[in-house]
Amino acid sequence: MEYIGSQVKDINIAYIGGGSKGWAWALMGDLAMEGDLSGTVKLYDLNYEAAQVNSMIGNNLSRRDDVKGKWHYEAVPSLEKALTGADFVIISILPGTFKEMAYDVNLPQEYGIYQSVGDTTGPGGIVRALRTIPMYVEMAEAIKAYCPGTWVINYTNPMTLCTRTLTKIFPEIKAMGCCHEIFGAQQLLASMLKDLKGMEDVSYRDISVNVLGINHFTWIDEASYQGTDLMPVYREFAERYYETGYEEKPGQWMDSFFSSACRVQFDLFRKYGLIAASGDRHLAEFMPRNWYLKDPETVKSWKFSLTPIDFRMKRQEELVQKSKRLAAGEESVQLKPSGEEGIRMIKALLGLGDFVTNVNVPNQGQIKGLPTGSVVETNALLVRDGVKPVLAGQLPIDVENLVARHVLNQETVLQAALNKDKSLAFRAFLSDPLVSSIDTGAAEQLFERMLEMTKAYLPGWDL
Amino acid sequence: MEYIGSQVKDINIAYIGGGSKGWAWALMGDLAMEGDLSGTVKLYDLNYEAAQVNSMIGNNLSRRDDVKGKWHYEAVPSLEKALTGADFVIISILPGTFKEMAYDVNLPQEYGIYQSVGDTTGPGGIVRALRTIPMYVEMAEAIKAYCPGTWVINYTNPMTLCTRTLTKIFPEIKAMGCCHEIFGAQQLLASMLKDLKGMEDVSYRDISVNVLGINHFTWIDEASYQGTDLMPVYREFAERYYETGYEEKPGQWMDSFFSSACRVQFDLFRKYGLIAASGDRHLAEFMPRNWYLKDPETVKSWKFSLTPIDFRMKRQEELVQKSKRLAAGEESVQLKPSGEEGIRMIKALLGLGDFVTNVNVPNQGQIKGLPTGSVVETNALLVRDGVKPVLAGQLPIDVENLVARHVLNQETVLQAALNKDKSLAFRAFLSDPLVSSIDTGAAEQLFERMLEMTKAYLPGWDL
Amino acid sequence: MEYIGSQVKDINIAYIGGGSKGWAWALMGDLAMEGDLSGTVKLYDLNYEAAQVNSMIGNNLSRRDDVKGKWHYEAVPSLEKALTGADFVIISILPGTFKEMAYDVNLPQEYGIYQSVGDTTGPGGIVRALRTIPMYVEMAEAIKAYCPGTWVINYTNPMTLCTRTLTKIFPEIKAMGCCHEIFGAQQLLASMLKDLKGMEDVSYRDISVNVLGINHFTWIDEASYQGTDLMPVYREFAERYYETGYEEKPGQWMDSFFSSACRVQFDLFRKYGLIAASGDRHLAEFMPRNWYLKDPETVKSWKFSLTPIDFRMKRQEELVQKSKRLAAGEESVQLKPSGEEGIRMIKALLGLGDFVTNVNVPNQGQIKGLPTGSVVETNALLVRDGVKPVLAGQLPIDVENLVARHVLNQETVLQAALNKDKSLAFRAFLSDPLVSSIDTGAAEQLFERMLEMTKAYLPGWDL
Amino acid sequence: MEYIGSQVKDINIAYIGGGSKGWAWALMGDLAMEGDLSGTVKLYDLNYEAAQVNSMIGNNLSRRDDVKGKWHYEAVPSLEKALTGADFVIISILPGTFKEMAYDVNLPQEYGIYQSVGDTTGPGGIVRALRTIPMYVEMAEAIKAYCPGTWVINYTNPMTLCTRTLTKIFPEIKAMGCCHEIFGAQQLLASMLKDLKGMEDVSYRDISVNVLGINHFTWIDEASYQGTDLMPVYREFAERYYETGYEEKPGQWMDSFFSSACRVQFDLFRKYGLIAASGDRHLAEFMPRNWYLKDPETVKSWKFSLTPIDFRMKRQEELVQKSKRLAAGEESVQLKPSGEEGIRMIKALLGLGDFVTNVNVPNQGQIKGLPTGSVVETNALLVRDGVKPVLAGQLPIDVENLVARHVLNQETVLQAALNKDKSLAFRAFLSDPLVSSIDTGAAEQLFERMLEMTKAYLPGWDL
Repeated sequence: MEYIGSQVKDINIAYIGGGSKGWAWALMGDLAMEGDLSGTVKLYDLNYEAAQVNSMIGNNLSRRDDVKGKWHYEAVPSLEKALTGADFVIISILPGTFKEMAYDVNLPQEYGIYQSVGDTTGPGGIVRALRTIPMYVEMAEAIKAYCPGTWVINYTNPMTLCTRTLTKIFPEIKAMGCCHEIFGAQQLLASMLKDLKGMEDVSYRDISVNVLGINHFTWIDEASYQGTDLMPVYREFAERYYETGYEEKPGQWMDSFFSSACRVQFDLFRKYGLIAASGDRHLAEFMPRNWYLKDPETVKSWKFSLTPIDFRMKRQEELVQKSKRLAAGEESVQLKPSGEEGIRMIKALLGLGDFVTNVNVPNQGQIKGLPTGSVVETNALLVRDGVKPVLAGQLPIDVENLVARHVLNQETVLQAALNKDKSLAFRAFLSDPLVSSIDTGAAEQLFERMLEMTKAYLPGWDL
Repeated sequence: MEYIGSQVKDINIAYIGGGSKGWAWALMGDLAMEGDLSGTVKLYDLNYEAAQVNSMIGNNLSRRDDVKGKWHYEAVPSLEKALTGADFVIISILPGTFKEMAYDVNLPQEYGIYQSVGDTTGPGGIVRALRTIPMYVEMAEAIKAYCPGTWVINYTNPMTLCTRTLTKIFPEIKAMGCCHEIFGAQQLLASMLKDLKGMEDVSYRDISVNVLGINHFTWIDEASYQGTDLMPVYREFAERYYETGYEEKPGQWMDSFFSSACRVQFDLFRKYGLIAASGDRHLAEFMPRNWYLKDPETVKSWKFSLTPIDFRMKRQEELVQKSKRLAAGEESVQLKPSGEEGIRMIKALLGLGDFVTNVNVPNQGQIKGLPTGSVVETNALLVRDGVKPVLAGQLPIDVENLVARHVLNQETVLQAALNKDKSLAFRAFLSDPLVSSIDTGAAEQLFERMLEMTKAYLPGWDL
Repeated sequence: MEYIGSQVKDINIAYIGGGSKGWAWALMGDLAMEGDLSGTVKLYDLNYEAAQVNSMIGNNLSRRDDVKGKWHYEAVPSLEKALTGADFVIISILPGTFKEMAYDVNLPQEYGIYQSVGDTTGPGGIVRALRTIPMYVEMAEAIKAYCPGTWVINYTNPMTLCTRTLTKIFPEIKAMGCCHEIFGAQQLLASMLKDLKGMEDVSYRDISVNVLGINHFTWIDEASYQGTDLMPVYREFAERYYETGYEEKPGQWMDSFFSSACRVQFDLFRKYGLIAASGDRHLAEFMPRNWYLKDPETVKSWKFSLTPIDFRMKRQEELVQKSKRLAAGEESVQLKPSGEEGIRMIKALLGLGDFVTNVNVPNQGQIKGLPTGSVVETNALLVRDGVKPVLAGQLPIDVENLVARHVLNQETVLQAALNKDKSLAFRAFLSDPLVSSIDTGAAEQLFERMLEMTKAYLPGWDL
Repeated sequence: MEYIGSQVKDINIAYIGGGSKGWAWALMGDLAMEGDLSGTVKLYDLNYEAAQVNSMIGNNLSRRDDVKGKWHYEAVPSLEKALTGADFVIISILPGTFKEMAYDVNLPQEYGIYQSVGDTTGPGGIVRALRTIPMYVEMAEAIKAYCPGTWVINYTNPMTLCTRTLTKIFPEIKAMGCCHEIFGAQQLLASMLKDLKGMEDVSYRDISVNVLGINHFTWIDEASYQGTDLMPVYREFAERYYETGYEEKPGQWMDSFFSSACRVQFDLFRKYGLIAASGDRHLAEFMPRNWYLKDPETVKSWKFSLTPIDFRMKRQEELVQKSKRLAAGEESVQLKPSGEEGIRMIKALLGLGDFVTNVNVPNQGQIKGLPTGSVVETNALLVRDGVKPVLAGQLPIDVENLVARHVLNQETVLQAALNKDKSLAFRAFLSDPLVSSIDTGAAEQLFERMLEMTKAYLPGWDL
């Protein structure tokens, strides 16, 4: 790296999962729009070909005149090649394929367990974690070997357990997990100000929030804008739209598998008095099965969707086609901010501007009441070569109990995965709120069937 | 008090709940058999007449020649009179009457929630706690006012929340909760040695155990006898009797509402690898509803009983009759050890012999992983004027999650009771594993009905 | 208060010590230059007349056309009047008079103990604390009574113990201590960049630092500017100027009792590898007596001064004269930034812009290794109605030992002052590094004499 | 090992330092008097010949008819041979020789630093630690390799740092440090009861004490005997003998370099209100130099001695001669209890009787206020395969500060030794209360000279 005033060139970024569609292009776009940084992105993917295609897409982009940030993209055939010399590591992978994800989501339905996402918690999230942790063990060891002092930014789900695996295996690692769900909550608050107060053009970045919890189950206990306490405003908002739900574009939740009308968020606020800062699809999965996910009708009544995996598969296929067109120059990457803060984070870590944002890192006291070492989500101050969590306080005791249950269960999953301990993994499975109300015999059968379908990713397990 | 060598006379004991049947007589018997201590027991009870009857019973006992420990019993009409000048305070009350307890146990059955005891956790335990906490607030304040430096021994259930209320309201209090369930587990281990190894005459007191958890949900992770590790022996034992259950007198569980065949204990051992050190009736209530308490048939298949409250009422009536005969001298208290360690504890606190036993006191680090300040159960060293917990270590992560969930929920109940916060109380109710799988609407209705039936004990609540 | 966009009017500030010279005028100047805020400042002082004079000075200022921030100043005769209705409380008092301070500094010299300041640590700092704590107990109780939810900003020394007393007496208080010494360290780093790298116009606010320690004994373990790690630059700087010292205007330390040539800072860096972020006069007092304060010659060799109290008295007298001229309108307050960040902090607490700066608040984990609850100095994120410390990490073990010794000794002083425990106070005195190497008999005599001279401020002590 | 009822045979003990005089024979005597245990002791020593001589002595002993515990003694040539198959490891070595110890004690005297022992703290203790830690690193690694689950009992000084090194290098080690100083304090209390109260035949084992601190700087805050609080009795005792000192045999301190008249203990009690539970020779070294060790006259006035190393050398020479006679059968080991509790500890760890005694193990919360992980001394419950510290509470803040300073300095020494960091080692040296009051230049010279004399034991250091 070389600093020239407030510009840095010759930066080396290792992108693990660099053959991805969507995410990779979003990063390329963000890099292209940032004039202060330049260098090389090494794309590593189990699917080397996909990484090569993306390198073409990236280099096509860099050739464009309207691009300020010029980067060279290069597909590499090994983790070692990607990591050696890296100034930053970005990890955004799909653990396994959508085929495994289909089993994660569909098999539980046979037992009455419906999951709206299936990538974070619940039976799907747990089995996905079992599959993913060995991959992150490998990455942690590789980072320790090839670039131990390098900052690592993780985007993969299950966010908490991916980040936790890195820090467990290599405690000195400089790693954080990043997620945009909080921005979504801030955007909702901005939208609320428009809706209730007629305030236009409030940027979500100017909404100050205190966040505490774990990824996709994070809570906001303080929110303000220009001196105004937004908590009572949100109370009014949640009550007004409790029954109908709220959407910027009404009805969108019916058209998109990724949208919702915030009814779950409003219900959680009514019950607990805090803003649950994630989309309804994620939130619902952390609560007892009969609350929001009892059956498809219940889900519909809460105005969100069970994202079907065949939809994901179809979309993926379309993106593969698109990637070919982008690589061939038949189509062009659209330059618009992705909504992620990865680039701004990299700039802060380079020392080009301290700022405060939410991150997922091990608890060192930033949340009182949750175990030390577990990965939690709060605000942090990002500085040159440092991520310093801001003390976020403590959740109210009832909400702490909801969150702690998942924190401890995630730690149980981690331990089971590291020790390849099927019995412990099953106990974690059984403790999940989506599972614990079904018959234990049925739960055991489901667990066996799910493991069977993902066993290719469980090397060394005694299955 | 006056010390004469290893004897102490003129001890003042305040007995709160001193009109009780059974418990009071057991204490009288234990005191009568202990030759080193003597003094006065002041019996205080909301039912003053019952205290008076007990004073007669006690004084009758003291007049007997076969009694070594001579005590004077005196009914007193107020907490102030009982506590002023007390060297020890013993609390053993029934919070409310069996009428309220009947609602605690019977109303939930209408919603499919069966409780084998109903005094510790579950909907019954929670509502009982809401009713009991104000009484313990009053006691804590009275102790602070009248005998702030005196040791307080609590026997009332819900043990954890009773003891916790005392320490919350008056943090400098010298209080502990005592329970004999661990002795039962030690007795089972002694019985096991006889059954499996042919070892006769093993005293349960010589079984060394490490206990950690919360009252009625305590776990043993180490057990030994004369150098032998009992954990593998117990594994063999649990497997051998997994299906049939184990009882010293086979079939007893069918004859007694208080017995069980240890099948729940064996099942928990099989799952978690630790000995759950309480009776099956208590253990079952801490686990998800569908595990052991799904319906009466399930309960029966696990070989324990749902203790009916009308049975308790009938037994109480018999004891009232017996108390009259005892007071009138028509019948005599039988001298046999109660199995409680209260007297030995008092002797240790007097400096007449340090010893190690299990107690319920606030967590100051004796259990790693559970919150500081919450009341937990572990071994402690009892010395002159001191109870010093022994570091018990940490539960395995999966068991810790089971226990922590109840610890946090109990703290929630405490906070709700102290703040008379019905909404928070309901959230605690809803978080209980016996409740969380029923419909939230049904749960709310049940909660309302239960509160209604106990509202006489909830002064100041906005119901 | 009323918000109009990003402006707030009708703010009420209670200024305790509002008769002060210098500090009060600096605040007035800062308020006058800030256009977004307006309201009333209530000046409370034991010297009511001085507060009245200051109210005239303040109101004179508000009448000027070049003043953007219009405030009304009003002297009030009681704490109650000052605090009732206050939106912010600022405390900046002189505990006692310079007469007592003279004894604090001069008596120890008779025993070979030289102090360069005498207001923070050492025999002078300890006796000053004993004198000041009762005043802060009174203030804490008044704040609890009259404005419990109001933010309190303390500027008085001993900073740590003043702030600690507030939080000890009224744990829910919203209080922080503010000090500009860190800005001095940042300015030195800016000056260093000019001197070594020829970089002009570097603002100290753009120097990013991680601070951890206690007031006047704070350490910087990370410093950067625009991506450049300043620690190796400072190493070069400290070595280059180790012998000669460094000053922007060479020789200034000889002309000013408040300046130094940073030789102590350089020596501490050489020894410990961290930047001691305070002036040499303060730093020297925290170390063993024979290091920097052995005798006046040693002090001179390190190129700083023992600030004489008669100089302070004379300066005070001049300020009194000046205050009369200012009140009479014969002279005018000069509008220039004071270098304090109080106004910016108030704006942040009002929700008009989050920012990160160093504060003194109880340790809630922001510094690992130091006791919870003790007041420490680190960065914090200031938000609407909140001060959220940033996790600063842990000091190296050897520096932690230096700091912890003072932290524990300050807690000892606090306990002694609250309990009016002379014996404990003496043990704290004896533990101070400036005292511990003199004869214990001599130390006792000195302590007695010092207490005698300040006994008017020790009500209830058994002296 | 084989258990036969309450007897255990075929026990394997590895004795590191097995060529020692005195200590080894004391252990042999204790083993010989204990009828329940038997097996093999493998003696390992850098001086193999000395181990061989001891094996002859031990085997001679086992052949005697009056010996109940029959053990086979065997000199082994390597750590590996000693440790492989060991059921217990006992470590009692002299780190280096008395030649190095002479420098540890004598060189500081040239700089006005007098040490009464020189093996625990002060310049001698620190340099001894630097020399010893590499040996303990080697032992920890060997234990990890050859007998990772075996209990290790350390007797070597510096006790704290020896034990700490074992736990630092191999955190899962089952290790504790044992020291008889607390028994000495209990014996003094028994002697006090005889002197003041005329109570004969009080056994020190029946004196119940709560101990907390670090080895040789441990404090008793509670002491009782048969219900009597001994703290006020000790107050009377300390006052009565404050000036004259107290000895069972008056004048003994003048005849023995290892005795004292408890004047330091009494003085510390007068100042701090707690019983410092170690001999005066040790206690004096932890306090500022000018308190008790200012010069030989001061030492004499406090009625204890500076133990001369040439005396130790002469005694050692006599023991060597004695060892030859013992091995040759010309003289016989005298059977009397050593006063150590090692055998009783081993029995407890074998499961032959739980008991409570003081041990040195890492702080896991047994002392509040001191760092987690540092080795501290408190009571612990010894059980089968377990040492469970008893929660000892917290030291008063002023005493905590005295102790914490040494705890942190010992951690600094450990870090310096492990990293072979001379500069850090010097900072630790400089922070010691015996050193901190001398000139830093002189301290540096002394440190250099001391290191020079021990450099043979500092492999890999850059000296």
